[in-house]
Amino acid sequence: MSDQITLIPGNSLNTKTPEEGRQLAVKMARLSIKLTQPDAAARERMRPVYAEDAAMLISIGQTVALEFATIARANNYWR
Amino acid sequence: MSDQITLIPGNSLNTKTPEEGRQLAVKMARLSIKLTQPDAAARERMRPVYAEDAAMLISIGQTVALEFATIARANNYWR
Amino acid sequence: MSDQITLIPGNSLNTKTPEEGRQLAVKMARLSIKLTQPDAAARERMRPVYAEDAAMLISIGQTVALEFATIARANNYWR
Amino acid sequence: MSDQITLIPGNSLNTKTPEEGRQLAVKMARLSIKLTQPDAAARERMRPVYAEDAAMLISIGQTVALEFATIARANNYWR
Amino acid sequence: MSDQITLIPGNSLNTKTPEEGRQLAVKMARLSIKLTQPDAAARERMRPVYAEDAAMLISIGQTVALEFATIARANNYWR
Amino acid sequence: MSDQITLIPGNSLNTKTPEEGRQLAVKMARLSIKLTQPDAAARERMRPVYAEDAAMLISIGQTVALEFATIARANNYWR
Repeated sequence: MSDQITLIPGNSLNTKTPEEGRQLAVKMARLSIKLTQPDAAARERMRPVYAEDAAMLISIGQTVALEFATIARANNYWR
Repeated sequence: MSDQITLIPGNSLNTKTPEEGRQLAVKMARLSIKLTQPDAAARERMRPVYAEDAAMLISIGQTVALEFATIARANNYWR
Repeated sequence: MSDQITLIPGNSLNTKTPEEGRQLAVKMARLSIKLTQPDAAARERMRPVYAEDAAMLISIGQTVALEFATIARANNYWR
Repeated sequence: MSDQITLIPGNSLNTKTPEEGRQLAVKMARLSIKLTQPDAAARERMRPVYAEDAAMLISIGQTVALEFATIARANNYWR
Repeated sequence: MSDQITLIPGNSLNTKTPEEGRQLAVKMARLSIKLTQPDAAARERMRPVYAEDAAMLISIGQTVALEFATIARANNYWR
Repeated sequence: MSDQITLIPGNSLNTKTPEEGRQLAVKMARLSIKLTQPDAAARERMRPVYAEDAAMLISIGQTVALEFATIARANNYWR
């Protein structure tokens, strides 16, 4: 398991807009998975599994919601 | 997986009312899923699966609750 | 999937008491599910399924806890 | 499904100590389940199921943690 | 189900260090489970089940993370 | 179950950067699992199980998101 990959692109939680904050949430969620499963081919094999599984899609959505909560707060909700 | 879709309609977490905030939470939850499964036909095939599955309906409800927590806070709870 | 149903009764997170806040949490959790499965008969068919399933009852309880966290905060914990 | 049961004993989130706050968290978690499954005999039948199932015990623990987070904050962490 | 067991050792969320706070999180998570399953022999029988099950180990980790979030905040993050 | 292992490396939630905070989140999540399953060989046997299981990878990602939320707040979001 390699800990050398970048986990937070740009090493910052700051984004200009909510949309960019949401994109960062998605990227951070994906990079967590990449850290645990660094083999790109293995991740590619799993894609058709989760992309056709409603329960997993919902679960991925929960992860994005959790990451976004932190990013939104870091940006003071872009008020 | 396309990252080009809009993840937050209007690029803002601000809404006039709690009801609109809740609707935004639902939309954001759905757009997360659309990002992971961009094929509309595939999402349509899954609808009867989750709509008849109590466990998945509950899980979707948890996602909405998580998204709403962030939106409610962004709007200072519409106080 | 109809988005026309009311998701937050009274369009407010304010309640007079913690008990009423908890009742609102339960209603909001149920209305999320109603949005995803608007067919009352389908929801009725699922009731004996989740009401006899310990794992689903626990999961419903988690949803209520999540919704209540937001409502309690919106009401400054009724201090 | 009866909404007439009490969901928050004493209609308050205030407790004198963390221990009492934790007990309230447990009670609130149980009362959520009672609301969804008001039949005491049905709940009793499920007890040996979840009490011997490690996954469900863990899940109950997560619910208590979620409820307690709100109660602890309501009490300003008993500082 | 006995409610007489201690749920929070020392009846306080205050700890001197993050490490002690994390240990308290683990203890609180275990005491929740003990409350629901007070039979030590039953808990002992489940140990080899969850200790060899990756999904349950992950789930226990989520519980500890939730408990720790509350404890860390109670201690103002030991700043 | 040994409680003697270190649960928080450096006994601090402070990190210089978001990236280091994320790495700490990952370490804390792993150390929770190590506490429950202290046998390194057993953990090693489970690795190919969760690394090839999309649902478990998602679940690990949720744990990291939860731990990171606390760490990010402890560091005032590295603002």
